[in-house]
Amino acid sequence: MEQLVKNAAGRLVPTVVNGVKQTPFQGVGKYKPSGKKAAPPIRSCSEYPADGNKIIKSLKDALLKCGLQDGMTISSHHHFRNGDLVMNQVFDIAAKEGIKGLRWFPSAAFPCHKPVIDHIKNGVVDWVEGSLNGPLGDNASHGNMNGTAVLRSHGGRWQAIQDGEVHIDIAVIAAPTADAFGNATGDRGPSACGLLGFGLADSMYADKVIVVTDNLVHFPCVPWQIQGQNVDYVVVLDKVGEPEKIVSGTTQLTKSPDRLHIAELTAKFVRKAGILKDGFSFQAGAGGTALAFAIFLKEMMKDEGIKARFIRGGSTRYLVEMLEEGLTDFILDGQTFDLEGVRSMRENFGHINTSPFTSYNWHGKGNFASMLDVVVLGATEVDVNFNANVVTHSDGRMLHGIGGWQNCLFSKCTILPIPAFRNRIPVIVDKVTTLVGPGELVDVIVTERGIAINPLRKDLIRATKNSGLPIRKIEEIKAEIDDLIGGQPAKPELDDEVVGIVKWVDGTVIDSIFKIAD
Amino acid sequence: MEQLVKNAAGRLVPTVVNGVKQTPFQGVGKYKPSGKKAAPPIRSCSEYPADGNKIIKSLKDALLKCGLQDGMTISSHHHFRNGDLVMNQVFDIAAKEGIKGLRWFPSAAFPCHKPVIDHIKNGVVDWVEGSLNGPLGDNASHGNMNGTAVLRSHGGRWQAIQDGEVHIDIAVIAAPTADAFGNATGDRGPSACGLLGFGLADSMYADKVIVVTDNLVHFPCVPWQIQGQNVDYVVVLDKVGEPEKIVSGTTQLTKSPDRLHIAELTAKFVRKAGILKDGFSFQAGAGGTALAFAIFLKEMMKDEGIKARFIRGGSTRYLVEMLEEGLTDFILDGQTFDLEGVRSMRENFGHINTSPFTSYNWHGKGNFASMLDVVVLGATEVDVNFNANVVTHSDGRMLHGIGGWQNCLFSKCTILPIPAFRNRIPVIVDKVTTLVGPGELVDVIVTERGIAINPLRKDLIRATKNSGLPIRKIEEIKAEIDDLIGGQPAKPELDDEVVGIVKWVDGTVIDSIFKIAD
Repeated sequence: MEQLVKNAAGRLVPTVVNGVKQTPFQGVGKYKPSGKKAAPPIRSCSEYPADGNKIIKSLKDALLKCGLQDGMTISSHHHFRNGDLVMNQVFDIAAKEGIKGLRWFPSAAFPCHKPVIDHIKNGVVDWVEGSLNGPLGDNASHGNMNGTAVLRSHGGRWQAIQDGEVHIDIAVIAAPTADAFGNATGDRGPSACGLLGFGLADSMYADKVIVVTDNLVHFPCVPWQIQGQNVDYVVVLDKVGEPEKIVSGTTQLTKSPDRLHIAELTAKFVRKAGILKDGFSFQAGAGGTALAFAIFLKEMMKDEGIKARFIRGGSTRYLVEMLEEGLTDFILDGQTFDLEGVRSMRENFGHINTSPFTSYNWHGKGNFASMLDVVVLGATEVDVNFNANVVTHSDGRMLHGIGGWQNCLFSKCTILPIPAFRNRIPVIVDKVTTLVGPGELVDVIVTERGIAINPLRKDLIRATKNSGLPIRKIEEIKAEIDDLIGGQPAKPELDDEVVGIVKWVDGTVIDSIFKIAD
Repeated sequence: MEQLVKNAAGRLVPTVVNGVKQTPFQGVGKYKPSGKKAAPPIRSCSEYPADGNKIIKSLKDALLKCGLQDGMTISSHHHFRNGDLVMNQVFDIAAKEGIKGLRWFPSAAFPCHKPVIDHIKNGVVDWVEGSLNGPLGDNASHGNMNGTAVLRSHGGRWQAIQDGEVHIDIAVIAAPTADAFGNATGDRGPSACGLLGFGLADSMYADKVIVVTDNLVHFPCVPWQIQGQNVDYVVVLDKVGEPEKIVSGTTQLTKSPDRLHIAELTAKFVRKAGILKDGFSFQAGAGGTALAFAIFLKEMMKDEGIKARFIRGGSTRYLVEMLEEGLTDFILDGQTFDLEGVRSMRENFGHINTSPFTSYNWHGKGNFASMLDVVVLGATEVDVNFNANVVTHSDGRMLHGIGGWQNCLFSKCTILPIPAFRNRIPVIVDKVTTLVGPGELVDVIVTERGIAINPLRKDLIRATKNSGLPIRKIEEIKAEIDDLIGGQPAKPELDDEVVGIVKWVDGTVIDSIFKIAD
């Protein structure tokens, strides 16, 4: 068994993962990086076609020209979410070529990538290092990868590439529109998915970069979200993605009366706390409750004649309406969650394409996340010290990626609107199964049974004291739920084998994910 | 005396310059770089203000906070051309602080920077490494710097920074509009100069970056041509530049009948050679003849119903008219040469902000320059082997920067429209004073006495054989001029001291510039 050490959050974490030395979490803002950023090899135009035509006739040929071989790291982005049509092809090709031991480094994997489980079984892929949504996460939870899962936030993924923790051999970038030189954009074309920001670091730092498109346009492809100067080969396929499947999983507005109530309470809190004022900014995730929150907030803004300076997306049609109705100057968007978001990014000057570098990278000279006045996020569990979990369920299974969640915690006010229980499992717990966000960064919990403010935020407690809002101690809400359900459920049975680690935004290890006992 | 070696072009060049080992020019496309790109230090958001406010009250304080000290390299961009108001202040501050031995690394210096000559005399600045237009070049030609001038193309400057040949300690980026976080743009604000592409590499690779603006806007400053995530400090001054002085030096339309004739001949050549066709592309420099060429070409395009896919700028009102009249889909612009260019970049979707990385960097995976169907450039001298000079005059004085000239030579057809003589000095010579562009890349010379096609371009000779154009051998044109003037003038008297070197696009040394004999 590997040796585990206790980190600054009191969690047991391994010191070596997949052969790479790890730094245990040292506390928020405590770890000081040193050294220089990673850097790709210097290339020469003499090695690239002078006419700018980098088209290769098949994905297989492009992969072989990139020198695909055993043990390489292959990366991809997830802007198509559950509609990606490229990466299963990549691993099928690798399998046919007899390649073994690859590391797949996606920004996120979705249920559509279930076939990769077979490639893990047959040794083509050793492990997947990226957000594991659904079946791939469940598979990893049962210890079925030949390597340890490494869960990172969107900002943490940029940080890991930038700092040289993860070296990408070949980046495969599915692009809804591209030219033969490799300039590419996500905001137009039959498979338009909005932007390509999750593949930007890959394009800049990988040794070799393949752009795969189904909509080849004459040079120049504008905008060039991905720059051809970073691209080695361009492959044209019939179809690279199904944009209608972008709207999947979490991006549906809630219909639950309880959740709608929580969303409304959250919006009321934002108003009563004095956050809702001209020129303010907010971010709401793509979960059903967060979307409902944005709709309630919008009505309040209209009532009070308030305009935001910017809204951070994940964009949806709700945010687009706010932009087009003049309720915000800008949407700073990292990921379009529906086709209205895609359209708006293409059409509206104020709908801005961002990347994890601009928004979330902790190892830059600042980022956008800490400038947000308020951010509204989800969680699978929260404990009485406001520590929160988004990657595992109470049964220990790793089913979700971190997304931008950890990065967003740095906003001026972080609110988690959560139901007090799900399927008779309480959401407020004694101790979160997996620590993803330290409690000192979580300011407010909103449940259908009341609002709990982190005692560290005396300013928020003061501001909402006589607001008439149902503000209660978190322990009190928890006790009430425990009473109702009949106490906290038994902890899941877990092996002591570490099947995954959770990185903090600075690259240190904040927690381990243990194998589900079979 | 330093040791000189003969490079592949037969020119004598030093092997060490300013203490840095040099590689002699090896021939076009022959030098193969190795190793990795340079990389800046890894930073942490914990060292930057969470609210994104990086404003420092004075330029002096910002320089001191950046750790300004003896021997540092300070960089700047030249988008204000002769209207820059920032860099003289920087060196005045350095002088007052008793700093010595700085290297100034501008993308170009202009006559407005003449005060830097005094800072060179008093030892604050050791040498200027960048395009030297006017008095600073003349000063260097007389051996008056405490270091050797290093002339690079725009692409070569990017390559030098990217490859780690030049490490920038502090980048000072004058910005017509910025926010407190350091996002900055050149396309708006009272001092709008269009874009900031010449400062982009500086912002990405320098240890410390200062944005200096006279138009602070609320976050976010959009577009962010410079990204705040790369910026350390923001300084607000009353005025950073005089955009009306952007139109300086070379950017005036010629009124000379001879030059107009040359410009028209050039346009006719482009048509007769079959280059003028739907979807074609061209670039014409900012010289008076090149501007006139664009106007003649425009009329031909209208006559024949031809539309370009893209035009490369330096943009001027002539190119903007073509864009707005629908004669091209795009202007890919590296530098706005007048205020109409600035306006258009702000207003037109098809007027695109480029950088030396996209357009010119030889050590990338291709660049835009080689995709151009035809480029029209100036020259101070051309020899009978089509070798050309743009940096020195026939008297040996270094008076001009290279700009994008060397990079543009990689187009599919490079034409130099030049007068056969200037002030009774022939422009076609036996041997260029300084070799800046190898003859194999110069395809056509157009003079008022006829057109000479490089014998290497059999395709162009064939295409224009029965065109009725005055196509002649270059030796024949030269002989005619020599006869007229009374032979080639005496070579300038030069010392054997090297006061400057000319870099080729790959970082190798293509020629030396020798001291003017006093």
